[in-house]
Amino acid sequence: MAADPRFHPIAAPQSLRAILAAVRGEAAGDPERLFQGLAALDQAGPDELTFIDSPKLAPALAATRAGAVLLRDEMAARAPAGAVLIAVANPQLAFARAVALFHPQRVPAATRHPTAVIAPDADVADDAIIGPYAVIGAGAVVGAGCAIGPHAVVGDGVVLGPRCVIHAHACISHALCGEGVVLHPGARVGQEGFGFLADEAGRFVTKPQLGRVILGDFAQVGANACIDRGTLDDTVIGPHTRLDNLVQIGHNARTGMGCIMAGQSGLSGSVTLEDRVVLGGQVGVADHVRLGRGARIAAQSGIMVDVAPGVEMFGTPAQPIRMAMREISTLRRLAATPRAKQDTKE
Amino acid sequence: MAADPRFHPIAAPQSLRAILAAVRGEAAGDPERLFQGLAALDQAGPDELTFIDSPKLAPALAATRAGAVLLRDEMAARAPAGAVLIAVANPQLAFARAVALFHPQRVPAATRHPTAVIAPDADVADDAIIGPYAVIGAGAVVGAGCAIGPHAVVGDGVVLGPRCVIHAHACISHALCGEGVVLHPGARVGQEGFGFLADEAGRFVTKPQLGRVILGDFAQVGANACIDRGTLDDTVIGPHTRLDNLVQIGHNARTGMGCIMAGQSGLSGSVTLEDRVVLGGQVGVADHVRLGRGARIAAQSGIMVDVAPGVEMFGTPAQPIRMAMREISTLRRLAATPRAKQDTKE
Amino acid sequence: MAADPRFHPIAAPQSLRAILAAVRGEAAGDPERLFQGLAALDQAGPDELTFIDSPKLAPALAATRAGAVLLRDEMAARAPAGAVLIAVANPQLAFARAVALFHPQRVPAATRHPTAVIAPDADVADDAIIGPYAVIGAGAVVGAGCAIGPHAVVGDGVVLGPRCVIHAHACISHALCGEGVVLHPGARVGQEGFGFLADEAGRFVTKPQLGRVILGDFAQVGANACIDRGTLDDTVIGPHTRLDNLVQIGHNARTGMGCIMAGQSGLSGSVTLEDRVVLGGQVGVADHVRLGRGARIAAQSGIMVDVAPGVEMFGTPAQPIRMAMREISTLRRLAATPRAKQDTKE
Repeated sequence: MAADPRFHPIAAPQSLRAILAAVRGEAAGDPERLFQGLAALDQAGPDELTFIDSPKLAPALAATRAGAVLLRDEMAARAPAGAVLIAVANPQLAFARAVALFHPQRVPAATRHPTAVIAPDADVADDAIIGPYAVIGAGAVVGAGCAIGPHAVVGDGVVLGPRCVIHAHACISHALCGEGVVLHPGARVGQEGFGFLADEAGRFVTKPQLGRVILGDFAQVGANACIDRGTLDDTVIGPHTRLDNLVQIGHNARTGMGCIMAGQSGLSGSVTLEDRVVLGGQVGVADHVRLGRGARIAAQSGIMVDVAPGVEMFGTPAQPIRMAMREISTLRRLAATPRAKQDTKE
Repeated sequence: MAADPRFHPIAAPQSLRAILAAVRGEAAGDPERLFQGLAALDQAGPDELTFIDSPKLAPALAATRAGAVLLRDEMAARAPAGAVLIAVANPQLAFARAVALFHPQRVPAATRHPTAVIAPDADVADDAIIGPYAVIGAGAVVGAGCAIGPHAVVGDGVVLGPRCVIHAHACISHALCGEGVVLHPGARVGQEGFGFLADEAGRFVTKPQLGRVILGDFAQVGANACIDRGTLDDTVIGPHTRLDNLVQIGHNARTGMGCIMAGQSGLSGSVTLEDRVVLGGQVGVADHVRLGRGARIAAQSGIMVDVAPGVEMFGTPAQPIRMAMREISTLRRLAATPRAKQDTKE
Repeated sequence: MAADPRFHPIAAPQSLRAILAAVRGEAAGDPERLFQGLAALDQAGPDELTFIDSPKLAPALAATRAGAVLLRDEMAARAPAGAVLIAVANPQLAFARAVALFHPQRVPAATRHPTAVIAPDADVADDAIIGPYAVIGAGAVVGAGCAIGPHAVVGDGVVLGPRCVIHAHACISHALCGEGVVLHPGARVGQEGFGFLADEAGRFVTKPQLGRVILGDFAQVGANACIDRGTLDDTVIGPHTRLDNLVQIGHNARTGMGCIMAGQSGLSGSVTLEDRVVLGGQVGVADHVRLGRGARIAAQSGIMVDVAPGVEMFGTPAQPIRMAMREISTLRRLAATPRAKQDTKE
């Protein structure tokens, strides 16, 4: 299926020459031949470009009707005769670059919707796009090339570096963002954290919430995800870190560079993720725990103690994955033993 | 307790005749007798209608002050003498229909709030209701009888079939909806999925997000739930499927007809649910997994491999529920064995 | 690090005299000495106030450069010579009170933003603050000193007691709030619950949703958290209860006074939490279950049956924590036993 032009308009057909330049690949074929778009291996037609990433898909490759295929060299022999074969080191990455060629981000002429409420002393770049009903607070800074979606709220004093994108309904306060930060729809950044203590009468008093949120360059925050600001210190999301939808980040938590948190996972307060940590979906991490560089946590695991660099963990409470798997198989074997036989052992 | 008229105004008292027609039931009694409203079995008064669904509630039935009771035939003998007894096959369903009679949805005369921002080329039905600060994008289609809540955002090109309801603060882009689709407050539909890969320098590049979201007839999406659009293909929510609050649907996932996902459950990318699959709260499903028709997954389970039709699963990693229960009881027994006794066996 | 004045402006320096009055503490020192702000133990400078709460931090106390320290009497001997020592019973609580002194909540002169849409018959207190694009529905009551954030939606008939704060993008309908209730950004209160049943044709019919949400005095609802209204009865959040971000509350659930639900935890329909129950992050509770006063549930646990008062539970399905821990250690020991040795036993 080619992309629906109502949502993903194609700028123009692209020549093989332009495609090769974009994907940094090589191919035999007429460099002026034009392609109309992109599609998956089993859906692409004769004037479309596709890719194959896994040897498992070799049968689909043999059957494809695509006009051109991005692939690794060693797959070339299994492609149909008619297709233009474009050899690349990483077909998925090459395909992502072809997308940028065929579907360049629509950049409307910079506009500020007349309904946007922008504080007189906010510093908004001339080429920033401000959508309908967006609210930009006092003293806020909106950098060059930023796009602020409909109803987004940028709080007093917030700094957005160049080319940040704040999607519809997201709100951000008490925060400083680097370059290219993206908040997806409904993301909440900078609200008070969940910290309080009981007074003499047993009623809760909110703890100081005097910190900020720092979002590093190219960090992305998923739809309806939440990042609380720090108490006395900051909450920090490292550069290139990606948070999926509905992720929760407690106050004073810190992630390193290039961390990944899948959907509905969460960090309690003061957790530290070193660089390149990966959390599966619905993972939870207890407060003040540190996960070493490159640690990988399987989905739904619960982390209660520090994790060494590079270790893979699974379970609640989580353990190194091999131990967790051994426990699972041990219990399965024991449960499968007939009860009578078990009883004689007891 | 009768419904609070501030929130649920009653149109008018209803006669027994009207009630019997609405619930498709039978009863002896004056067909012109009027009832004022609805309430629970233990709270209804002499001019209110109630229902009893479970034999366990027989004592409450005997004690009820309700003027009329929806019940199954076999419960009639246990009802108090004064009440009008309305025999129906499914008392809960009959009661839901009585609600529609007493509390018809308030349908204001079609209005477009003057603050709504509607693109000049959007195709909005004359009788659609557009709330304050709603935003309707270029080329969007809003069908007959739709209701768009305050601050809701309908993106460029989005198609809403007849009688869709987009509640306050929901936003939808890159999507096509059938008839009667409901997005509850803050639902996010159509944003980019969580797909990216590392380039040569180790930085993340977003994968193509050229697909759409297709919402079938009468699908409902809970408050603050999220549905990402597909990459090259579509994300599809089948007709009559119901997603609870804070549910997460990854890109290219598909549900069949009449699936149910309880609160805070989630599907990773490319998951398939066949028709009538039921997921409990906080369930997670790993990417590319298929769950067969009518599979039922207990709360908090983690599904990592395909599930056959009709099977009930539990645990992380999930197993057929009987096996999971046997493991739980096996471990409880082993742990209860005194340590000394265990040691002699090792 | 002192608080960033862009986000947390300091009203004025404070004298030792004022600090002692605010924290209800005692200290030797010039009562007119001025302090400029607040900071953590390891970051405070000579004109800042800090606190120490744990004996573990004694080395940091000895090294602090802070001008004044809130501490318990018994820590005084370990403080550096120059600092003013302020003896208090609860240093954290005292520090929270000092925050209120140095950083009083900014209360702008009461303003209604000209873009706010307020129904003609809404009863809004003269001193309430109504932000840009807020929507206040017909018959709604907004009490004295309330603050309604940008884009917040207060539905028809909703009652907000005095000094409630509805943050940006939150929406509330079908609800009555006491004094001092706080909804953090994107919270959803009062929408339809997740209740429906199949009709004769197998299609879902929504059950009655005729109840309300009752929020007790000083209850707080986290960012993007969701509370569904009741069906025939009410959903009730008790006074002083605090819900963290992304929490889910099903219809007819009830919490007592001073309950705590950490991030991403959820209650199914008709759950009851008695007073002072604490749920860790990502905990789930099955429908109709009751948790006794002061019960404490560890993170990620799944509660399927009633819990007695004061009991600590862990696991899915949850058990008293000591039993859960014994099972974990039993299984670890069994899995560590060499396979050959296990086999001889079978």
